[in-house]
Amino acid sequence: MSLETVLHKIDTDLEASLDRLGALLRIPSISTDPAYKADCRRAADWLVEDLKSLGIEAAAHPTPGHPMVVGHGGEGGPHLLFYGHYDVQPVDPLDLWDRNPFDPEIQDTPAGKVIRGRGTSDDKGQLMTFVEACRAWVAVHGKLPCRITFFFEGEEESGSPSLVPFLREHADMLGADLALICDTGLFDPDTPAITTMLRGLLGEEVIVTGPSKDLHSGMYGGAGRNPIRVLSRIIAALHDDTGRVTVPGFYEGVDDISSELRAQWEALGFDAAGFLGEVGLSEPAGEAGRSVLEQIWARPTCEVNGISGGYAGDGFKTVLPSVASAKISFRLVGNQDPLAIRERFRAMVQGMLPPDCEVAFRDHGASRASVMETSDPAFELARQALSDEWPREAAFIGSGGSIPIAGHFKEMLGLSSMLIGFGRDDDQIHSPNEKYALDSFHKGTRSWARILAALAG
Amino acid sequence: MSLETVLHKIDTDLEASLDRLGALLRIPSISTDPAYKADCRRAADWLVEDLKSLGIEAAAHPTPGHPMVVGHGGEGGPHLLFYGHYDVQPVDPLDLWDRNPFDPEIQDTPAGKVIRGRGTSDDKGQLMTFVEACRAWVAVHGKLPCRITFFFEGEEESGSPSLVPFLREHADMLGADLALICDTGLFDPDTPAITTMLRGLLGEEVIVTGPSKDLHSGMYGGAGRNPIRVLSRIIAALHDDTGRVTVPGFYEGVDDISSELRAQWEALGFDAAGFLGEVGLSEPAGEAGRSVLEQIWARPTCEVNGISGGYAGDGFKTVLPSVASAKISFRLVGNQDPLAIRERFRAMVQGMLPPDCEVAFRDHGASRASVMETSDPAFELARQALSDEWPREAAFIGSGGSIPIAGHFKEMLGLSSMLIGFGRDDDQIHSPNEKYALDSFHKGTRSWARILAALAG
Repeated sequence: MSLETVLHKIDTDLEASLDRLGALLRIPSISTDPAYKADCRRAADWLVEDLKSLGIEAAAHPTPGHPMVVGHGGEGGPHLLFYGHYDVQPVDPLDLWDRNPFDPEIQDTPAGKVIRGRGTSDDKGQLMTFVEACRAWVAVHGKLPCRITFFFEGEEESGSPSLVPFLREHADMLGADLALICDTGLFDPDTPAITTMLRGLLGEEVIVTGPSKDLHSGMYGGAGRNPIRVLSRIIAALHDDTGRVTVPGFYEGVDDISSELRAQWEALGFDAAGFLGEVGLSEPAGEAGRSVLEQIWARPTCEVNGISGGYAGDGFKTVLPSVASAKISFRLVGNQDPLAIRERFRAMVQGMLPPDCEVAFRDHGASRASVMETSDPAFELARQALSDEWPREAAFIGSGGSIPIAGHFKEMLGLSSMLIGFGRDDDQIHSPNEKYALDSFHKGTRSWARILAALAG
Repeated sequence: MSLETVLHKIDTDLEASLDRLGALLRIPSISTDPAYKADCRRAADWLVEDLKSLGIEAAAHPTPGHPMVVGHGGEGGPHLLFYGHYDVQPVDPLDLWDRNPFDPEIQDTPAGKVIRGRGTSDDKGQLMTFVEACRAWVAVHGKLPCRITFFFEGEEESGSPSLVPFLREHADMLGADLALICDTGLFDPDTPAITTMLRGLLGEEVIVTGPSKDLHSGMYGGAGRNPIRVLSRIIAALHDDTGRVTVPGFYEGVDDISSELRAQWEALGFDAAGFLGEVGLSEPAGEAGRSVLEQIWARPTCEVNGISGGYAGDGFKTVLPSVASAKISFRLVGNQDPLAIRERFRAMVQGMLPPDCEVAFRDHGASRASVMETSDPAFELARQALSDEWPREAAFIGSGGSIPIAGHFKEMLGLSSMLIGFGRDDDQIHSPNEKYALDSFHKGTRSWARILAALAG
């Protein structure tokens, strides 16, 4: 059977796959630091050459920042767009690394073999699982299983400034039927996952001004309006006693998860106590009656991410401050409309102002939630393929955070995305001693071979 | 009439009085800056010599900081203790001064003649009004009108670190029947005042901890406890909708002002709209149904002087912080017990904590309000004497801030204090271009002569 042959090829070629990954990892493609600009270019060129070695037509396209690598190969449906990024995070503090971050090695650990080095998990190791699966497929079949566009970004770790303009300008080059994004993780080391729900994010800064200058609380204390008190009352009023957000109309577009999804999540056996206990908590603080997984994956939130006002240094100062401000963010789900919520939030705050107060708002971005159309049969096919490779059945899961690329693909290319990745929670991405389990790499590569077989039919 | 002779002497001697004040002002006795230690000593010595020239036995007593000047003179009751301070505030930024701060001069201004220079109003000019009144008295009568102890401090502008130990060690040297403190102001340029109520101050820092480390709001937002939200709810709950403080038992020991005092305050014609308008406010923010003067002089408060938590820099960070903290102060009146209030406040905060939160408190000091026994006839005598000198009748007024010396005299020497001074609101004490109205100095000196005549009987 041809899939078995491809999987066998992956197994026997593992050593060489790791050598190729090692070559890519050795290029210090830190996108945020201009000192590494040439290295980013080198990483892009390396990928172009590697794709070409598979018979893929590939090129590095210049941008005002780092190049975008685009390759086209294969024939026949479905047309897949595969996304990964070749840039990595900075490595400081260097003294917390147990070795040179750009001289990767395989290490034995109590939890099994790992590849240690910057970019192993985020995202070069993940990106290469797909490339290596394609390589094995080409080796066995002489060609890719279907039409595939490869799209590798070099600015993901520095805010993707060139991404949207590039998508806008080259939409024709990137058109496809479905996107595959490899930048997420397993649910746990035994359980693969397809992330099908990503929360959106609305960021607002609220700046409340009372008196025209800082006052002495001896002179004005009592009669003078205190903006910290005003702001505290506003923040306190943003949730009711059951933990629900009180902004009018906030829950418009928020649906309960389906019973199928609920069953999958329950089957995950999520260790809520462990998840909270790890950070010193024991009780979920969100909406009453919702599980922790619902609270972090499927429910919208309002959080205060920062607050400041008056004197916050050492000692004490009896100031009655002129200004207090807070940074407030909303995680959004389902079909919530960020712009409508922004408007209602601002109106609510305005409506709570006592006399002699003004409020200014600063816009810190707004993005809708991404909810994948899991009714597309590709999702169930991929889930089955993953379940065949790993010890436990794959699940459709949510992500509390945002992965903007999925939203951009939807909005600019009209594409649904399947977010599939093999990272583990303890991979220390963005931190010293980043690693990727050897298993993640090997079984990840095998997983893609299975998924390609399933999708190409 | 002998008082008239003394007043006449003050008038005719004004030029020489100003020369003496000028000599003291020229000594840059900045107490907080070690570079001026010798100058502080020089100012103390100058005062000792000046007192000696009046036949007063005086000496500069060393302390770990700057010397205390103590002088004894006169005979017969009542025994008065006069307090002023010879140290001054730093003068930077120097470029905002229109002349050398330590080269004082008389200047014509639209509001009349002023003495310009550091320390003119705070407090050398005020201190010298009393000394010059005594000088005129001695010149006319050959002796002081009663027994007077002079007590001049050199560390008032740097926190008075030596004051309490000195009072403790030398209580016998400073015993008297009544203290006169000259470090306050007129109610307005035409209306003299005796400050008879000083609010106390209780300072607390509240540090709320939720998760054991900062969390990512994408990962934990919803389920993770947010200490900024917890702290905001606590702050919001500290006042009810009428502006009253909700700490249990907070108003124990708070009495309404007497009808006599209310009448005096009403007669002041206080420009509440102007007071608020100057700092961009239009409505008093304190307890409903209380006048602005009551709110700032006679009512206790709870204010938030500072708050911080999470990310407050430029841009946005979706952090769910581990810690949030606030500096909270209470202004106290009447017989409120700061230590009891601290205890109840802390219990109230503890009682509002949701699961998984801890709170720590930092003590930032506690002092009771000072309420003078105005039933002592000396107060009414002094008020009459002041009313005789100035265009408008003198009033007993309050002060929203604290003047710790009055509390120390009460506590350590068992003395009531009369706080009488002649500064104006626009004297720019602690700021560049400090001044003292020539009128404040001249009529201030005459006022003390009248008060001494009245008290000595």
